[in-house]
Amino acid sequence: MRVEVHFAYDKIADSIFNGSVVIMVDVLRASTSIITAIKNGAEKIIPAGDPGEAASFAAKLGFRDCLLAGERGGLKLPGFDLGNSPLEYTQEKVKGRTIILSTTNGTNAINKARAARFLLIGGLVNRTAAAKTAIEKGCDVLILCAGTDGQFSADDVLTAGALIDAISAVDPHLETNDLGLVSCMVYSNWLEGKADISLTHHYSRLIKLGFEKDVAFCFSVDSTDVVPRYSEGVIVR
Amino acid sequence: MRVEVHFAYDKIADSIFNGSVVIMVDVLRASTSIITAIKNGAEKIIPAGDPGEAASFAAKLGFRDCLLAGERGGLKLPGFDLGNSPLEYTQEKVKGRTIILSTTNGTNAINKARAARFLLIGGLVNRTAAAKTAIEKGCDVLILCAGTDGQFSADDVLTAGALIDAISAVDPHLETNDLGLVSCMVYSNWLEGKADISLTHHYSRLIKLGFEKDVAFCFSVDSTDVVPRYSEGVIVR
Repeated sequence: MRVEVHFAYDKIADSIFNGSVVIMVDVLRASTSIITAIKNGAEKIIPAGDPGEAASFAAKLGFRDCLLAGERGGLKLPGFDLGNSPLEYTQEKVKGRTIILSTTNGTNAINKARAARFLLIGGLVNRTAAAKTAIEKGCDVLILCAGTDGQFSADDVLTAGALIDAISAVDPHLETNDLGLVSCMVYSNWLEGKADISLTHHYSRLIKLGFEKDVAFCFSVDSTDVVPRYSEGVIVR
Repeated sequence: MRVEVHFAYDKIADSIFNGSVVIMVDVLRASTSIITAIKNGAEKIIPAGDPGEAASFAAKLGFRDCLLAGERGGLKLPGFDLGNSPLEYTQEKVKGRTIILSTTNGTNAINKARAARFLLIGGLVNRTAAAKTAIEKGCDVLILCAGTDGQFSADDVLTAGALIDAISAVDPHLETNDLGLVSCMVYSNWLEGKADISLTHHYSRLIKLGFEKDVAFCFSVDSTDVVPRYSEGVIVR
């Protein structure tokens, strides 16, 4: 099989997603928040492009019947119920609820890839389960790294490498593109303690904002087997 | 100082180049051909966007007074004097000549970055000299990886890592962006024999076309101290 890695959703043609199996990766933190929310019993998550669209969705559903969630610049949006910290998405808060989520990169990447045949949400926390689910679909896989503000984000590329590593455990002869090869290198270096992710842009910005616990949580590899899937406008288990 | 690495010239805003020191990298093979041509005494190289533009420049200069050079799909263009193999750019052929060059990625990347204050041509063959020349300008450096057909190209990213390595020998405290960090990782893995560049897209395509000698030549690190510079439409020593 072939696994391609692409980054920065805003710079690629929509057509590459048509009919493919896509794993969307925004490890810090949208992917991890979505996985955690679904794991903790959220009924569904509606990805919104911007805060205005999120508010408009909420107005249609009724503000009492949903939770408004999202961030800009890493911080919770004013008036929203939840930010983009996976640790906020507790069972107590999200069980049985509909969440409308707008983040800077992740939810836009999901909407960009909406033409995919199967669109899965992957992170480090569910990398083996996400890889397994993708392989079961029986065709080539495209890993879409959301990136940070249109830039190459090493944390997402590391996660792509972790996903390819899990896929290659099933298919050791998989082919990949140049970014896939480099992703595997980054993941392998990280496992060996040779890739200092704390130097990367998004990671260090989150640490400066005080999200150390979030980052540690997002980097806990294979801590869950929940793989959320986007279909027809909503993300479900 | 800060060294940023960007890739795929067609996906970034022209404005980032304004007033900056840029090293353009298309290691396989435009950078290496340009460096070799200038080293072997070519008077100047005019980068052209497409073969039609190249022919139009040649018509203006007079076909006898210049050499038409370039490739598409890795192969010499019909009717052109030279392809994009650095080994063709011998002293016998290029000394004292004006070369009009059109390649798929490299010459377009050069034209994209034309607003740079200093625009240097860098490869593995001149990486220490290119790094030194860039540092001498006394400001931040932007390394532009031409990429391959708009895609992330691991050979260019490896070269960016080699350039940062040479810059960091002078300024060990340099800051870089995520792609810069990953570039350094790729270069370091390559030095340790852990990065199999033969698996990468552009490299393997050139090998299939029979350009083994070109590739070996392009990967001969620090074999020259010639650093071509683009200024006002032409590349000179």
